[in-house]
Amino acid sequence: MKIAETEIDVRYAETDQMGVVHHSNYIVWCELGRTKLIKELGFDYRDLEDSGIVSPVINIDLNYKFPAHFGETITLSTWIDSYDGIRVVYGYKVVNEKGQLCAEGNSSHVCVKKETFRPVSIKKQLPDWHVAYEKYKKPN
Amino acid sequence: MKIAETEIDVRYAETDQMGVVHHSNYIVWCELGRTKLIKELGFDYRDLEDSGIVSPVINIDLNYKFPAHFGETITLSTWIDSYDGIRVVYGYKVVNEKGQLCAEGNSSHVCVKKETFRPVSIKKQLPDWHVAYEKYKKPN
Amino acid sequence: MKIAETEIDVRYAETDQMGVVHHSNYIVWCELGRTKLIKELGFDYRDLEDSGIVSPVINIDLNYKFPAHFGETITLSTWIDSYDGIRVVYGYKVVNEKGQLCAEGNSSHVCVKKETFRPVSIKKQLPDWHVAYEKYKKPN
Amino acid sequence: MKIAETEIDVRYAETDQMGVVHHSNYIVWCELGRTKLIKELGFDYRDLEDSGIVSPVINIDLNYKFPAHFGETITLSTWIDSYDGIRVVYGYKVVNEKGQLCAEGNSSHVCVKKETFRPVSIKKQLPDWHVAYEKYKKPN
Repeated sequence: MKIAETEIDVRYAETDQMGVVHHSNYIVWCELGRTKLIKELGFDYRDLEDSGIVSPVINIDLNYKFPAHFGETITLSTWIDSYDGIRVVYGYKVVNEKGQLCAEGNSSHVCVKKETFRPVSIKKQLPDWHVAYEKYKKPN
Repeated sequence: MKIAETEIDVRYAETDQMGVVHHSNYIVWCELGRTKLIKELGFDYRDLEDSGIVSPVINIDLNYKFPAHFGETITLSTWIDSYDGIRVVYGYKVVNEKGQLCAEGNSSHVCVKKETFRPVSIKKQLPDWHVAYEKYKKPN
Repeated sequence: MKIAETEIDVRYAETDQMGVVHHSNYIVWCELGRTKLIKELGFDYRDLEDSGIVSPVINIDLNYKFPAHFGETITLSTWIDSYDGIRVVYGYKVVNEKGQLCAEGNSSHVCVKKETFRPVSIKKQLPDWHVAYEKYKKPN
Repeated sequence: MKIAETEIDVRYAETDQMGVVHHSNYIVWCELGRTKLIKELGFDYRDLEDSGIVSPVINIDLNYKFPAHFGETITLSTWIDSYDGIRVVYGYKVVNEKGQLCAEGNSSHVCVKKETFRPVSIKKQLPDWHVAYEKYKKPN
């Protein structure tokens, strides 16, 4: 099982008038984590899109535990929580500098043709990705 | 049961290079829906914050069904899915002009003191809101 | 001279921990104003992109005068400040409900081929837009 | 004269359907550059806000030269372009990995009381910042 760690400096623009990071930004951070994990698996998301395939989110489920603040560097852990040949579920954990858990959750993705948004089997159409997902996903 | 309907013109800045609305923006849209619903319940979220109470998100669970595009006006339905005196769960449905379901899901919220982020009982500290939540929430 | 007026409800997510709208969001608002003005000129920006032409920003010059806040509805005025057949400069004014000037400025745009980002003469390639720009631009 | 260099990995969420970074994000990047420069001058913007002073933008003037793309790491240079005891103007240059100039410009800022937004003289109220700004600003 591979876990990618991404350090993110909280941006001022990511705060809201509550004085903490607006919750929508964690969704953007998760994307940074996926990009990093995919790179560590040996791929580049750009190459996927260049080949005419995009990987939209089909579900986000995120629990917010403790607010992150401007000036902090948070650490985002990202891993493959499950994978079945078609759908990949990424898991996430956001921890602040003091080790406090800020958020955790997961997002589900499929692959689709960029032009038509018709689903694509990762197992069949992206065999290299399939092998890596199988190898590095969380064991049952 | 009250359902607030919010019409939202998709912004160009909300799209990404996939050619569709980036998924993080639906989270922002849900917030517009909550603001509208709260107004229709007879309250103003600003008054809540002015009284020293904020209402952070503790969970987001959203399913993405069909992409929204720049130039479309989507309709967001928002309602109180459940409420127990402390936690309120809002339900959401995003539908495009053709009636296609783009997304649906819910978000959970509590109320906390703005200064300390310590939890507050809505039932005890915000009796007017409690009455409205009870009256207009989705029946079991 | 045509002036498009766009009413915008300030979003909570647009605020920052200063308690006011983060300055980057005015740039997004200006885009809403351009979309509205273009519609009032009889065009749809989507049709332009469908024809393989996009209109990137080449300069933004914006003065911030008074902060906008969550809960306010601001009015954005947008007009064609100047146009020379190739470059179009849009002018903007953001006013709050009390009539206070929040921001004013302009943005400059050209048209380019979507695939190559090579410049396109509006006068030659988009004669309908050229006529409208000439007709409705601010008089010298 | 001090120039802070900030490396920024372009985020997928920062792109738009034009296939390039949406222009509003450069404004956010400039803020990252200011934060970095201020740190290199020996200060922390958080301490300023903790002391009841915020530093809003009063002007942004940015030229867009070449689009940045997802997957690129851009380098942002930030310096103090001018300073007069009250107003500080930061200069910016965004360059991509190939050395192409993507954007350049500046932003002007003042300091104000957080509660009232009334102007504060940096020279008088923030003598340490004044000394640093004078020492490290671009020579005439």
